[in-house]
Amino acid sequence: MSATIPEGFKDLLTTKATFAHLATTMSNGHPQVTPVWFSYDGTHILVNSAKGRVKDRNMRARRDVALSIIDPDNAYRYLQLIGRVVEITEQGADAHIDSLAKKYLGKDTYPWRGPTEVRVIYKITVDKAQTMG
Amino acid sequence: MSATIPEGFKDLLTTKATFAHLATTMSNGHPQVTPVWFSYDGTHILVNSAKGRVKDRNMRARRDVALSIIDPDNAYRYLQLIGRVVEITEQGADAHIDSLAKKYLGKDTYPWRGPTEVRVIYKITVDKAQTMG
Repeated sequence: MSATIPEGFKDLLTTKATFAHLATTMSNGHPQVTPVWFSYDGTHILVNSAKGRVKDRNMRARRDVALSIIDPDNAYRYLQLIGRVVEITEQGADAHIDSLAKKYLGKDTYPWRGPTEVRVIYKITVDKAQTMG
Repeated sequence: MSATIPEGFKDLLTTKATFAHLATTMSNGHPQVTPVWFSYDGTHILVNSAKGRVKDRNMRARRDVALSIIDPDNAYRYLQLIGRVVEITEQGADAHIDSLAKKYLGKDTYPWRGPTEVRVIYKITVDKAQTMG
């Protein structure tokens, strides 16, 4: 059962170019957290990584994730999400990272692409949304 | 074996009043992540919560944690830490939350204290430090 993001906080997912801090779980059970770019398709949070990275390996093996998303203009206003990766795909992942470069850097093309990296989209369903502020 | 924080990134732990995104693990194994205030005593990262909260229950039962700490002036410069809670104490926790209120709000006294809440300090040893930017 997916949770609804409160309307008053959807700007954090759409108009404001803020990072999500994405928590995943290592193979030894230890939590791991990194800042990530993301987009929101109205239902899922979409993050983008590259095949073989720690986050990639973690999310393939253990689908449970959590995200913390702060309002860049007011750090005491934030979304705290609990969710699951429901789809992992390379389809559209290059275009998606370019769209994130546009959102976060104002650039048409992702400037940090490695020569051999394979981009991957992780679609996250939100099961629980808590708000603060 | 604790890890050393690179000198060039210690400003994120000391002079800059930035949040840490602290990841813990729920009893069902699901990761959880929230923004927190913190201080650094030169060896440990100190966070402060209240008895009975989700983070408190998680860290008492499962000591492994992770933190992501972004430079507020450059989001592409950050620290990503893997660590363990090595001490949990109420001693000095009221003074500590007041010192965090000073660091983050410029106030001498923590203004959001609940009438019955018991403040707790969690001392975190950093086992692995990764830097970006």
